[in-house]
Formats: sequence, structure tokens, C-alpha cells
Amino acid sequence: MSRLIEYDDASAEVRAVYDEIMALRKVDRVNNFWKALANDPVTLRRTWESIKEIMRPGALDPLTKELIYVAVSATNGCEYCIASHTAAARSKGMTDEMFGEMMAVVGMANETNRLVNGYRVPLDPQFRETD
Amino acid sequence: MSRLIEYDDASAEVRAVYDEIMALRKVDRVNNFWKALANDPVTLRRTWESIKEIMRPGALDPLTKELIYVAVSATNGCEYCIASHTAAARSKGMTDEMFGEMMAVVGMANETNRLVNGYRVPLDPQFRETD
Amino acid sequence: MSRLIEYDDASAEVRAVYDEIMALRKVDRVNNFWKALANDPVTLRRTWESIKEIMRPGALDPLTKELIYVAVSATNGCEYCIASHTAAARSKGMTDEMFGEMMAVVGMANETNRLVNGYRVPLDPQFRETD
Amino acid sequence: MSRLIEYDDASAEVRAVYDEIMALRKVDRVNNFWKALANDPVTLRRTWESIKEIMRPGALDPLTKELIYVAVSATNGCEYCIASHTAAARSKGMTDEMFGEMMAVVGMANETNRLVNGYRVPLDPQFRETD
Amino acid sequence: MSRLIEYDDASAEVRAVYDEIMALRKVDRVNNFWKALANDPVTLRRTWESIKEIMRPGALDPLTKELIYVAVSATNGCEYCIASHTAAARSKGMTDEMFGEMMAVVGMANETNRLVNGYRVPLDPQFRETD
Amino acid sequence: MSRLIEYDDASAEVRAVYDEIMALRKVDRVNNFWKALANDPVTLRRTWESIKEIMRPGALDPLTKELIYVAVSATNGCEYCIASHTAAARSKGMTDEMFGEMMAVVGMANETNRLVNGYRVPLDPQFRETD
Repeated sequence: MSRLIEYDDASAEVRAVYDEIMALRKVDRVNNFWKALANDPVTLRRTWESIKEIMRPGALDPLTKELIYVAVSATNGCEYCIASHTAAARSKGMTDEMFGEMMAVVGMANETNRLVNGYRVPLDPQFRETD
Repeated sequence: MSRLIEYDDASAEVRAVYDEIMALRKVDRVNNFWKALANDPVTLRRTWESIKEIMRPGALDPLTKELIYVAVSATNGCEYCIASHTAAARSKGMTDEMFGEMMAVVGMANETNRLVNGYRVPLDPQFRETD
Repeated sequence: MSRLIEYDDASAEVRAVYDEIMALRKVDRVNNFWKALANDPVTLRRTWESIKEIMRPGALDPLTKELIYVAVSATNGCEYCIASHTAAARSKGMTDEMFGEMMAVVGMANETNRLVNGYRVPLDPQFRETD
Repeated sequence: MSRLIEYDDASAEVRAVYDEIMALRKVDRVNNFWKALANDPVTLRRTWESIKEIMRPGALDPLTKELIYVAVSATNGCEYCIASHTAAARSKGMTDEMFGEMMAVVGMANETNRLVNGYRVPLDPQFRETD
Repeated sequence: MSRLIEYDDASAEVRAVYDEIMALRKVDRVNNFWKALANDPVTLRRTWESIKEIMRPGALDPLTKELIYVAVSATNGCEYCIASHTAAARSKGMTDEMFGEMMAVVGMANETNRLVNGYRVPLDPQFRETD
Repeated sequence: MSRLIEYDDASAEVRAVYDEIMALRKVDRVNNFWKALANDPVTLRRTWESIKEIMRPGALDPLTKELIYVAVSATNGCEYCIASHTAAARSKGMTDEMFGEMMAVVGMANETNRLVNGYRVPLDPQFRETD
């Protein structure tokens, strides 16, 4: 595994990102994800700026965004991402029922994606044009 | 590609599923997905029963469920599923802004899933227990 | 797409592989897959030797091996591989019923793989040891 | 990870599914997979009904179905599913030789799927029509 | 498919990104990828800034980065990305031999990744610590 | 997990492969990957011959090949393969900067692959012909 860069060992450049994360999220530490990315400060900075922009409230609320994040991570089998974004979703109001229904959709979509592949289902005419 | 079973050529067993789909969705035809699955009436019936149960309103509203369906399908690269569920999402109220934000989360999650893999980020202690 | 190397334009090295494929499979042409790989004669030769060794009858019969090939290809969404190995499976005796049941398992496994991921199901003690 | 619902803590609805699983499989406990799904009784019931229908003997025998299940799970990298379905396959007669040959096909299919993708191999005319 | 936003129909915000892309790459048009992303100007801007930062010469030269891009895209089966980044790699000096060797590694890695999964190979002690 | 076949317990056929690996790599033991594959001597032999042929210096140098190996493995989420090929890359000269830049490309490619999928970006005319 990668070395985890703790705050006390971090460069000013890395500390600046850690400070922003802690301030925005109102926490007093950053997760291992950020401590690992800190091995490459350019990637740390870019990833943080991107996530900040993408996950802020917009046409979709933050909880819906976290549900989508978990859905993708469960599809890809990234345990760390499932665990951390499930926790984030819970902190934003995800109930057991919502988790169960989200996972049911994830399971079904993964199933029908492969049924479509294997049966080689051709696009219906109405799906060929601009959505 | 699989043979598509049209209503007029379908068995009573298959027609019964087609009739239910058309009645519930208030449409006068079924998509190619169902016409392809009709080659295996057992799978057709089971898949329809499952989708009906999973996609109905619950703790999550139908639009959120469609967004999750598209997110998984885009992750897996299933063109048919992306096209058909994007259309379904639009019919349930998805705006261009919502589509754009959903896809931004999908892209980001796919990126960070791999950063986590490559950096081999260890689980933080708080993520090890029951969510 | 890659240039397809036809027999008449192929080097002696490539023709030797084409000849072996046609002789073993009792056909008078090779598929586009081989014509594309012929752009790299080393990969063409190695891939053919490997497939020949792997797909021959053994503890599993050739039809079962083709079913597994289609199952993997449907999971990965490789249209060419699904089409060519479905055709190969049919030529070895796969019926519509067998195709339908194989695809049902593929769909289910893809679904439960993600349910396991999302629910983060811990290994039962009996699965931890040597299988 | 998800909370595992033990029989003694389960609702009547969940116990009914556990009872069916134990009866059909002639075991006196259910795997963690079911105990995790029990957090969502609707998903537990639907998944059990689906697996029961899909995995029963048909045009394909139960061992072939388990081999396909392992092949998909190995392709997706789901450790739990690989472990539990490898055990199930062994209980249904899978030998070391069968496991080795199945995995050889899985490896090869995953390799050639990507060769096809990267070389952008066009479909041969005979694969374009109905299989 | 998404609507493609042509330069003449684009907002000032979108045109500014198109102008940067054309200037940096010394071309007089942008690819469909950018015209599709332009439906969401925030994603267009962020994606361009990220790609510009990531693909510039650094510890790895631009050709090596394009090879890695194609390798990932072939693994995921994204036809558009394979086509566009193969073209980019060729413009940066990729020969037929380099393409063939890159694809051979991609195929092999996809194969051994699954052999490792299926055989459930435990980490050697020397791989457990920080790389 | 699979039984690991140690040298002292191995057949002559397996020992011959182990001997070749140790001689070529100038090490006095083989990794668990080989000890697991040794359960199927045919797969062990074929996999070793293939890897030896693919990873030798050619139009691409061995370090570039290892970077591609890690990129694919991180995309697929194979922890063992990431760990062992990251170690191999380091032994061939990969610096922290090179690892960081490789992973940045891997993350970006995984992101844009899905943006392309979701937006259903059509191929530009210049990408439709032979590369």
C-alpha cells in the first residue's frame, strides 16, 4: 500500500488541501484516501478541486449524488469507496430502506446490462436519435 | 443478435407479460429488450417481475432509481441500457442539468475507484465496522 | 479498426497459422479476429497456440468451454466475442434452452456479485480455508 | 460491512426464507450472503426466488451452472462469490482438473475480449445475422 | 446520443474552451467528445483542465501516457476512446510494433488478473508493506 | 484460496518451470502466483511461456510494459497484480513521480471512458477508418 502522508509530515502545498477539506467538511482529520493521494500533490489538488465542484448541491441534491457514487463503486467492486461513500450517504440522510432500494437497482442494472449484451438486443428506433 | 418475438408470434405466456408491461407503462408496444428475452419465457417473466418490484416508488422516487440505473449502465458501457434508461429518466423529469451532474459523479467515481485501487488505500478504522 | 490481413497478402509465418486454423476447424477461411491479430505475428501465433490448448476436450467438454467463453464475454460486453463464441457454441450443440439458462446464470451472477460488494458481505469461516 | 441478521433475531418474513434455503439445501444454517440481504427482506425474498429458479436442473446441469457462476465472479473479481460458488461447484462434483480448465477459459476469454477491443475487430458477415 | 454543440452554436464559455483546445493542439476543430461534453459547460471546462494537466510531458513522456490511455480504454471496451487515443498515440510516434506489444501486455494482464481472482492467490509477504 | 505448491512438493514438470523463473529473474523463490497456478501444470507452463515472451524488451522497454500492467490491474481492481507489478516496476526504475503520473492517466481514462459511454459520443469520421 502507499505511504500515508500525515499532516505533520506534509508539505505546505499538501497541508493547504488538507486544511480546505477539514474546513469544508467540518472535521478535524482527512481520510486515508487523501493521505495516499498526497504522495502526488498535483493529483491531490486536482482531485479535491474536482470532487468539491462535482459533489456540491446543484440540480441534484448531495444525497442523490452520494447514492450514485455508491452505485458506481459497488458496480466496480471498490471496497474502500463503497465504505467511505456509504458512510457519507448515511451522514446526509440515507436510511436503511434507501440503501436497500439503491442496491436493488444496482443489482438489477448489472443483471440486465449483461442480458442485453448476451442477447445482443438491437436499439429500438426511438433510442437512436438524440435523447 | 437474438430473434425478436413480436406480439403476433408470441405464445400466450409471453403475451401475458407483454400485456402487463403495456398496461402498467401505458404504452402500446414493448421495447426490443422484452422481445429478445421472450426467447426464454422463464427469464422474461422473472425479469419483468423483478423490475416491476424494484423500480416502483418506495424510499427512493422513480427518477432517482432511473438515474442510478443509467449510472450503472454507463459504468458498464451497455449502450442499449444507457439509451433506454436515459429516455425513461427524461420521461420522469430528468433535466439536462440533472443528466450532466449525474454523469459528472459517474465519471469521478470511476476515476477515484481506480486511484484507490492503484494507491492501495487502506480502510480507515471508522469504515471497518458496520456502516 | 485494424487492417485485416488476407491470406494472399500474408507472410509465410502468418499463413502457417491460418493453415493450421483452417485444417483443425475444417473451414476454408479464418475469422476477422485472426486477420486482425496477424498485424502482430507473435501475438497471432501465441494466441492460437493458447486457444488450441485451452479449448480442446479435457475434463470439460468443448461445449461447456464455449458456454463459459460466452458467459465471460457477455459479462465484459465484447460484442464480437459474444457473436463468434455463441456461433461456436451452437455449432457444438448449444440449444436455445441452454443459451437461455446460461444467460440467466450470467445475469444472476452479475447481480449478486454487486449485492455482495455493496453489502460488504464478510467471508463465512468455511470459505476462508483452501477450497 | 452490513449487519448480519441471525435466525434468532430475524422477523417471521426473513425466517421463512431462511427455512426454505435450509430445507432445499439440506443444511442447518444459511451463509452470510443471506444474512446480509436480510436487511432488506424484499431483496432477500426476490433474490432467493430467482436463484432457486435459475440454478435448478434444466437444459444445463447444476454443476455447469456453478462453473458459469464462478467464471463470471472471477471475471468481476468478487471474492466472496468466487469462494462460495467454488465450494458449491466442488460439492456438485467439480474436480481440480475441471476447475483448472474452467479458469483457463476464463483467463483466455478475458484476454481475447481485450485484444478484440484494442484491434477494433469488425464483425464477420456471418455473425451479423440472428445467431 | 447527445447533441453535439458546434462552435457557431456555442456560448462564449464553451467557445473559450474550444479555442484553448484548438490552440494547444494546433488543430482547427475539436473532436465530438468535446462537442458532447459542451452540453455541460462545467464538466467541459473541468475535464479539459484535468486532461491538459495530466497529459503534459512530465516524468512520463506523452507517448507513454497515450499508451496507458489506450490500455485502460481497451480494458474497459470504450470504442470511441480506443479509436481517438490510438490516433493520438500514432501522431506521437507509436509504431505498429509498439501497438502490438502494448496490446499483448493488456491481454496478458487481463488474463492473469482473473487467474489471480479465481485461484484466490494470497499476497506474498513482501507485497504487504509499503511499495 | 488455492493450495500453494512449494518447490519441495512439486512434480518435475512444475519444478522445471520454477527453475526457469528463478534463473531468468535471478531470484531464489517464486511468487505465490506461480505456486497457485502449479495446481494446473498446463496453465502454469503456458502462462509462464506467454509472460516471458510478452514482457521481454522489444519496441517497448520493460518498464513501460510494467506500467501498462499496473494500469490494467488498477482498472480491474486486482490487488495482488497491482502489488506485484508495482514492485516489478519499481525494480525496473519506476520513480514516485512516474507512478503518480501513470495513476493520473489511469484515473482520467476511467473517467472519460464513462463520460463517452453516458453521452453516447459518436465516432468522428477520421476515427472510422483504419488507424
